[in-house]
Amino acid sequence: MRRLTIALSLSLVAGSAAAQTKEAIQLRDMGSFHVGGRLIEITGQPIKEVVFTPGGVPAKMDPNGRYQVEQMYVQYFLPQNRRGKLPLLMWHGGGLTGVTYETKPDGGEGWLSYFIRKGWDTYISDAMERGRSGWTNTLKGDPVFLPFGDPWERFRVGPPGSWNDDAAKRTTYPGTQFPTEAYGQFMKQGVPRWLTTDDQIVAAYIEFVDKVCPCVVMVHSQSGSFGYRVLEARPDKVKALVAVEPTLGGDRNKVASIKSTPILVVYGDNAKDHPRWSKIRQGGVDYTEVLKAAGGSVDVVDLPDVGIKGNSHMVMMDKNSGEVADLIQKWLVGKGLAD
Amino acid sequence: MRRLTIALSLSLVAGSAAAQTKEAIQLRDMGSFHVGGRLIEITGQPIKEVVFTPGGVPAKMDPNGRYQVEQMYVQYFLPQNRRGKLPLLMWHGGGLTGVTYETKPDGGEGWLSYFIRKGWDTYISDAMERGRSGWTNTLKGDPVFLPFGDPWERFRVGPPGSWNDDAAKRTTYPGTQFPTEAYGQFMKQGVPRWLTTDDQIVAAYIEFVDKVCPCVVMVHSQSGSFGYRVLEARPDKVKALVAVEPTLGGDRNKVASIKSTPILVVYGDNAKDHPRWSKIRQGGVDYTEVLKAAGGSVDVVDLPDVGIKGNSHMVMMDKNSGEVADLIQKWLVGKGLAD
Repeated sequence: MRRLTIALSLSLVAGSAAAQTKEAIQLRDMGSFHVGGRLIEITGQPIKEVVFTPGGVPAKMDPNGRYQVEQMYVQYFLPQNRRGKLPLLMWHGGGLTGVTYETKPDGGEGWLSYFIRKGWDTYISDAMERGRSGWTNTLKGDPVFLPFGDPWERFRVGPPGSWNDDAAKRTTYPGTQFPTEAYGQFMKQGVPRWLTTDDQIVAAYIEFVDKVCPCVVMVHSQSGSFGYRVLEARPDKVKALVAVEPTLGGDRNKVASIKSTPILVVYGDNAKDHPRWSKIRQGGVDYTEVLKAAGGSVDVVDLPDVGIKGNSHMVMMDKNSGEVADLIQKWLVGKGLAD
Repeated sequence: MRRLTIALSLSLVAGSAAAQTKEAIQLRDMGSFHVGGRLIEITGQPIKEVVFTPGGVPAKMDPNGRYQVEQMYVQYFLPQNRRGKLPLLMWHGGGLTGVTYETKPDGGEGWLSYFIRKGWDTYISDAMERGRSGWTNTLKGDPVFLPFGDPWERFRVGPPGSWNDDAAKRTTYPGTQFPTEAYGQFMKQGVPRWLTTDDQIVAAYIEFVDKVCPCVVMVHSQSGSFGYRVLEARPDKVKALVAVEPTLGGDRNKVASIKSTPILVVYGDNAKDHPRWSKIRQGGVDYTEVLKAAGGSVDVVDLPDVGIKGNSHMVMMDKNSGEVADLIQKWLVGKGLAD
């Protein structure tokens, strides 16, 4: 019985049963760094005595002086057998971190491992203010925290009115691919977000792009807006943009400047009919029309139209996420960006 | 010139020049998960309308309901050629995250890669409230933010009075191994910490240990205290404890219960003479004497006494971090925990 428990627990922890059947991931290097940010000056505050550990020795702390703020965390994995021709940067959506692309909430393999296995030098970052980027009390306004049930409807696991605190009474869109049994695990991935910090977030992304690009940038949800802004700022460095369920398009006045960068926009299921997402999607699609009219190269894919059904807003966590990754990989190969 | 710039930037980004000369890291699996935490209930708050993206479509947000709080993030790397007999869990110190063990601030290889290469199933976590674990406004009190110059003296890069805002005027302990040229990069790794949350942090670590252990736990600085508390709670699951510059020992009333777990305590240079660290170190050493008297197995190593000189508090970031890792690895092999 004890042996069985250990075997089961190992399998839950590390997905080892599944992993054993897969090819090893071979990396020529892996690591992390922080990029961007700045030093600011605080003055006129009294010196504090702080006990950092209960029962520990008090330390004097002078809150005056300079503070490091607004940097961004990046972790990278460089496969031994490189087949992507440029680095692939994966940017997450609002209230989340790079964990979005790691192991899926149900324990399945996420897009980070998928694209490493396809031979991409893959860079996962946490947006300025979130996760391992850190944050400071110098950001304006208060951060937002999402209630446990909020994303169920907002991320289109179920239609409006489908959430219920009692899991047995929740409903979903028919055939949803979101792993509803792992919704609680997904909600553990959430982090606070401010609503005033887009400029600092974009500034850090631009420093990141200046450091590691030319590259391919993949964005999701809130970072759709950041992807377009960074592309507009560095059209020579972002060689392709993959926008998964972006919440906004780019600046219609700047379409001419980005027309040489191919763009793929992907929407999941039920986006066209959802009261809020129908507007978001239409805004994004209208923008691509303006971009195309200016000579831009944009492919918009509504997944149900190509036979991939049931996807929520969190496409990379859905049970069929591999099918969508295949579609993206095929598009990138078609653009000559990978073998 | 353009080609030169790209080559240089690649080398800075990914340490590729050094990486090319190293053996590939082969993983049978990698991934992440969150563990622990709980749901809490908030009631009586008004519904808000929030624009998540400037220019975006407003969304209604009901702040009432349940919230996920106090979970912890874990990322794991499982080498193809496993030589550590148990998982190795690496816990970081205060105001920091698991990034502590990743690439060093000067771009050198950190202890995460070192121990993966030695064949350990390696788990890096962010303590509850920090990094990718997320945080909520339900934690008590205000978080602490470290001024830019504060760790220079507190982490023993230089002696008291050695910090200067002007980098040219800063001094260090003679022969310091801390990469002073990368001090700014180190400071980008900082995150806020609360001073009221030890119990929640320990609760999440215990859930983590219950999930993946028996194991070896490595702790640093603030997590020294957490390591002892978790060992006291799960003496059958923590099969060895490596405490690097711990800020506290364990509970003297519980030494008998943990005496079968071997412990290695490591202190860097200048700890004995530093006004604050001399007390911290003495408290830790006094505790190990009590543990030994009860039959416990503890090795205390002051690195200068074994010829490893110049180490700061951030031993794993110092230029000679590999020598200290070798010492730890040798100790673990000596305890029969690795080949």
